[in-house]
Amino acid sequence: MTKIGIIGYGNLGRGVESAIKQNDDMELVAVFTRRDPASLQIQSEGVKVDSVDNVSNYTDMIDVMILCGGSATDLPKQTPEYAKLFNVVDSFDTHANIPTHFANVDKAAKENSHVGLISCGWDPGMFSLMRLYGNAFLPEGTDYTFWGKGVSQGHSDAVRRIKGVKNAKQYTIPVEEALEAVRSGSNPKLSTRQKHTREVFAVLEDGADAASIEKEICEMPNYFADYDTTVHFIDEDEFNKNHSGIPHGGFVIRSGKTGWNLEDTHVVEYSIKLDSNPGFTSSIIVSFARAVDRLSKEGVAGAKTVFDIPPAYLTSMSGEYIREHLL
Amino acid sequence: MTKIGIIGYGNLGRGVESAIKQNDDMELVAVFTRRDPASLQIQSEGVKVDSVDNVSNYTDMIDVMILCGGSATDLPKQTPEYAKLFNVVDSFDTHANIPTHFANVDKAAKENSHVGLISCGWDPGMFSLMRLYGNAFLPEGTDYTFWGKGVSQGHSDAVRRIKGVKNAKQYTIPVEEALEAVRSGSNPKLSTRQKHTREVFAVLEDGADAASIEKEICEMPNYFADYDTTVHFIDEDEFNKNHSGIPHGGFVIRSGKTGWNLEDTHVVEYSIKLDSNPGFTSSIIVSFARAVDRLSKEGVAGAKTVFDIPPAYLTSMSGEYIREHLL
Repeated sequence: MTKIGIIGYGNLGRGVESAIKQNDDMELVAVFTRRDPASLQIQSEGVKVDSVDNVSNYTDMIDVMILCGGSATDLPKQTPEYAKLFNVVDSFDTHANIPTHFANVDKAAKENSHVGLISCGWDPGMFSLMRLYGNAFLPEGTDYTFWGKGVSQGHSDAVRRIKGVKNAKQYTIPVEEALEAVRSGSNPKLSTRQKHTREVFAVLEDGADAASIEKEICEMPNYFADYDTTVHFIDEDEFNKNHSGIPHGGFVIRSGKTGWNLEDTHVVEYSIKLDSNPGFTSSIIVSFARAVDRLSKEGVAGAKTVFDIPPAYLTSMSGEYIREHLL
Repeated sequence: MTKIGIIGYGNLGRGVESAIKQNDDMELVAVFTRRDPASLQIQSEGVKVDSVDNVSNYTDMIDVMILCGGSATDLPKQTPEYAKLFNVVDSFDTHANIPTHFANVDKAAKENSHVGLISCGWDPGMFSLMRLYGNAFLPEGTDYTFWGKGVSQGHSDAVRRIKGVKNAKQYTIPVEEALEAVRSGSNPKLSTRQKHTREVFAVLEDGADAASIEKEICEMPNYFADYDTTVHFIDEDEFNKNHSGIPHGGFVIRSGKTGWNLEDTHVVEYSIKLDSNPGFTSSIIVSFARAVDRLSKEGVAGAKTVFDIPPAYLTSMSGEYIREHLL
């Protein structure tokens, strides 16, 4: 059994809780929160809810701690901090800051003989793997990643953290003309702005300044500055009625050439269509938590990413079984 | 540099030769053949062609030997044999016999401190990885693999090995109704026969008995017995005119559910469209040969499959680079 702890009980934390229930070799030991533990009602029976301040009491009881905070402010601090106490997995998704985050987690994890897997989920995560496989298999080629239409958790979270914003959802929408050009095999050069638009639906706190918040959203580096972003301020009723789901989707395409004179063209496409982004993300994270537990028990330490994990480590099925049934 | 040898110079061997040219960190040392080496004209300048009988003279010069023989009769003997002398990669694709093949290669490789990666390519290979990832990420779900329309090298090879057959091409064709049912998310139960048909175009040797050859094809275990197979006997001119390309394609779909009450459905699809099946297969093989070389230099020994390989080992790009650009 792999014994799991969860820090943070938002959409992702709840998804992790559900995913653990789907895996017979995984056990949820405790959920940790910054809120009053008594105020938190979780779904698993007989599982402890405790304050995040008490997390150090659990080092002997938990094999892997799954960090379900946000990338903007939580994870840059939390992942290196908790990698001192536990093997950890996070879903850090600020692509531009991954090298720094990796270095910080690597130091803390190595000094304390833990494994810290960062940037797990579907992007970064499974989409990253598809980009890597595409580059490895078709070295002369181009890859394209499109997201949506769907809600980006990281981007919604970033908007919600702005002072004066009560609630927000951010939809990422692929630009149809760009998509068609890629699938035609014409290998178009596309800027960030040409590939996607972003649409934000936000509920403001009383007295908040809509104009300055809109500006703050649209100019936010890494998240919105490179995109054409539309911001809609709506009331809470409309928000709850029309923007309560968390669907997502997207695809990674690699088109490339092989042959002595590069005479043959190949197009490889990976696509996902998700009812629930945190549901799929957390299910991937739980599978990588299994791999982290195995690596740690083998004596491995340090920061890792999805690129470092042998796929066989992700499943509870034996090597014999997967060779016979999945190979 | 990873120094590569090739045994067998058919479509796959030529593909490997071209793929090595696309990878700056790979070097082709020699091509080995069962034919008279003087009769073989390869495309790479300054690369030795030698008899397969002399292969043991090259143990110090080659990091990984890529075996480009057929699965029906060559590889079951060759891979364990050459795993005694070299690190090896093969594309063994008789799914039902993989456990036995793995055990034979594992014994030879371990006894001689080599790595033997079996069943590499796109199926088995990349499609296997997609099935594994799908099962790991969506444990409550169903996966489907469809092939084609395209030429199966393994099946064409199996037909060509029948006495009396001069040349042959086998096309695998997905059944359109089955495909539509899967994509609808209805999770249909489909037999092997309901998913694909097989179509063979064969040229006979003078005096061959068409009826007995057709029977031998259609009843061949593992290859044709479980499918509705149509066999066409055609003359050499028609064969050369209409059946000289080796396109292929296919996809792996995993649909599954997450959520506390399995309320959310997700559909994940991986699809490929290939101008040249051996071109793509050999490009994948070369990428895994790089991983085999690295594992061997780390002291690893024994049989491996694509499931055992950390994705980062497949590329010449550094860990820092892929974390910054592909994660």
